[in-house]
Amino acid sequence: MAIATVRNGVNVDQLVQTINAIKGDANVAAFTFRAKTRWAEGSTSSAEMSSFLHAGRHQSHSRNHVLTGCEPEVLLGRDNGPNAVELVLAALGFCYSVGFVYNAAAMGYELEELEYEVEGDLDLRNFVGLEGGSRPGFTEIRVSSRARSSNASEEQLQELCRYVQDTSPVKDIIANPVPVKTSLEVID
Amino acid sequence: MAIATVRNGVNVDQLVQTINAIKGDANVAAFTFRAKTRWAEGSTSSAEMSSFLHAGRHQSHSRNHVLTGCEPEVLLGRDNGPNAVELVLAALGFCYSVGFVYNAAAMGYELEELEYEVEGDLDLRNFVGLEGGSRPGFTEIRVSSRARSSNASEEQLQELCRYVQDTSPVKDIIANPVPVKTSLEVID
Repeated sequence: MAIATVRNGVNVDQLVQTINAIKGDANVAAFTFRAKTRWAEGSTSSAEMSSFLHAGRHQSHSRNHVLTGCEPEVLLGRDNGPNAVELVLAALGFCYSVGFVYNAAAMGYELEELEYEVEGDLDLRNFVGLEGGSRPGFTEIRVSSRARSSNASEEQLQELCRYVQDTSPVKDIIANPVPVKTSLEVID
Repeated sequence: MAIATVRNGVNVDQLVQTINAIKGDANVAAFTFRAKTRWAEGSTSSAEMSSFLHAGRHQSHSRNHVLTGCEPEVLLGRDNGPNAVELVLAALGFCYSVGFVYNAAAMGYELEELEYEVEGDLDLRNFVGLEGGSRPGFTEIRVSSRARSSNASEEQLQELCRYVQDTSPVKDIIANPVPVKTSLEVID
């Protein structure tokens, strides 16, 4: 019986199989992810992520993921959930974490601890329709991370941190332009 | 006794006061938002959003917001939560929603329904270290929205949709480059 190699909670055999499958057919790397948001009241909306496309085929999540988004009281909300820009910061931390953990697993590094503190500066003048704001979105994002490994050196982990920045989907989405096409259907 | 004007669940008087406060002191528009993520196991991490800076001062959320991020099984996870790129799509829907609802409230439009379907195409070749991928992040994001109002015209809502795209923080973060500074502390 074959016993799978699991490191940092990652099935390394399955990781290697996935990479080989992509090498054999680039279409295996093609995903379309989706989120559906529905406005509730004021600043409160819910988002549902229930399925995605993989290699052109519909895949359901094993369970529906539902989030509530809201604004804090100073931004006229009820603080029912994180706001949209906080979610972007959380997404960056999650993305860095998956990249670090999976690559560490492939390289044989045993991780014992990994944390990201992510912060971003925002000037809300554009959002409220006033002149003088630098831009609507974050002017800068700063990430401080901490990692502990039982068998990787400082140099190996610093090199991995650089590699993860270069290959992180969310880092790329934030640091480089992504085309966004938006349409509205008005219903009676 | 003054009675607040509330439209679409938004306190319009407080919205006008906030805009006037920012006109009087641009520092009132300055926020630094934060998310702290902690790795749990494999692709699973948790994020906590408990406080932010407003006008240079510490503000606590009225409650801690905690999220779980994970990957679906095809990406070697346990599907304990949405993944990082799905969160970016949810964030865009939330951001558009707040912008649409707040501006509609200020303009006197009564909204009855507002939904966003957001999808993004991803090629995972870069993430898994293979050549040939176009980029690590989304190559395109598409947003289809639906709105219903009892008193705004099709033209007014289409114009509002364009305005919201131009002033949305998350749209700007995705569509334009944001500087991201990342550091790692290796701990013993």
